[in-house]
Amino acid sequence: MLSKSQIKFITRLKQKKYRVQEGLFIAEGLKTVNELLESSLELHHVFSTNSFNSYAEKQTIISEAELKKISSLKAPNTVLAVFKIPEPKPILNTGLIVALDAVRDPGNLGTIIRLCDWFGVKELVCSEATVECYNSKVIQATMGSITRVNVTYTDLETFLKETNVPVFGAYMDGENVYTSVLPKKGILVMGNEANGISEAIEKRITQRIAIPRFGDVQATESLNVATATAILLSEFKRG
Amino acid sequence: MLSKSQIKFITRLKQKKYRVQEGLFIAEGLKTVNELLESSLELHHVFSTNSFNSYAEKQTIISEAELKKISSLKAPNTVLAVFKIPEPKPILNTGLIVALDAVRDPGNLGTIIRLCDWFGVKELVCSEATVECYNSKVIQATMGSITRVNVTYTDLETFLKETNVPVFGAYMDGENVYTSVLPKKGILVMGNEANGISEAIEKRITQRIAIPRFGDVQATESLNVATATAILLSEFKRG
Repeated sequence: MLSKSQIKFITRLKQKKYRVQEGLFIAEGLKTVNELLESSLELHHVFSTNSFNSYAEKQTIISEAELKKISSLKAPNTVLAVFKIPEPKPILNTGLIVALDAVRDPGNLGTIIRLCDWFGVKELVCSEATVECYNSKVIQATMGSITRVNVTYTDLETFLKETNVPVFGAYMDGENVYTSVLPKKGILVMGNEANGISEAIEKRITQRIAIPRFGDVQATESLNVATATAILLSEFKRG
Repeated sequence: MLSKSQIKFITRLKQKKYRVQEGLFIAEGLKTVNELLESSLELHHVFSTNSFNSYAEKQTIISEAELKKISSLKAPNTVLAVFKIPEPKPILNTGLIVALDAVRDPGNLGTIIRLCDWFGVKELVCSEATVECYNSKVIQATMGSITRVNVTYTDLETFLKETNVPVFGAYMDGENVYTSVLPKKGILVMGNEANGISEAIEKRITQRIAIPRFGDVQATESLNVATATAILLSEFKRG
């Protein structure tokens, strides 16, 4: 049974303000919740229509109707869990790092986290204007990858100023990525959905790269930031 | 001013059944509508908060509140237009063709249409179980690319049976795409989000290809179908 105060507690966590205040976030669906339970994340509480064996003291069994009430999904799937937001970890200067300059769409951020996981990118550095990674839509789109990629929010300009590795920026008019020499160690910066890389960050870019367009002159002017990240990570890693 | 019958007409077109019956579909937003107006598509009617110069007799000027009432977008942008669904065009057996086996998510289909446009793929062949391309979420995600890619719904099994070009299928355990020889002419089949390529279609695949995973053994088990299509199209086209 769900209490009124539990409903209020979960509803509040749908807002960033309360997530930051409480240090908690929501994950939904059996697959995602299971992946998070198997990770180093600390469970706060689980609300489920079925029993989760090992979490008796942190568990509330609820009805499907109750799950529907608290879920953000169109088709809620068995479970909604609340986890503690982990302490920030230092950024390791190893291999390829992806940096995001004000990516705003939760689906795009979630897809990019999943891509980092797939391509073995351990560090994702986000400007403060990038959408928060504990937004439930981001968590849904990462499919559990959030536990394997270290996502850090920081002043991106300062971070790039202090690095000594090459900084690649994705542009429409950069050098053809297919013929560029791409190092094992470096930073790949992806820009905002509408405006691309900002002026302040552009000053820190050491190499502008682009994905060539093969369509007619009338073809679409740009690729979605998540699909562009997919192609560029593939190029960096394929060797 | 919007009439009651106009509101009913637009509301109905949000359902596939009525789109098929009327042979009409909805597009929203200034950028998308302008791209469609410039294409060979035939305008049925435009509902706009500003006047569209050349379409006086097919135009209804409406208020922002009225636009909000008929829009499917969270932030409606100036205009909603109704276009005629074009007559099916024959599939040209030229260059690379992308085929979809029951892709269900409108955002994925829209992104794949945009990717085809970017990479100069003219033909997208969809199984009957693939989400309808005149769904408004697909139209939104294509950003106008729908006018430059010929999307055909057909019995995919029969289509593949009758072709004489190589048929590539995207699998988790296929041959490494980075070291595969990829021809200029062929068909690339992408499978359903949850189940991949179906058994019936698998029989028509002549070469199984895969995108290698670079992450740890624990890394995410799969890529989203749209991001996987992005990487594979990039591989086919980079040469």
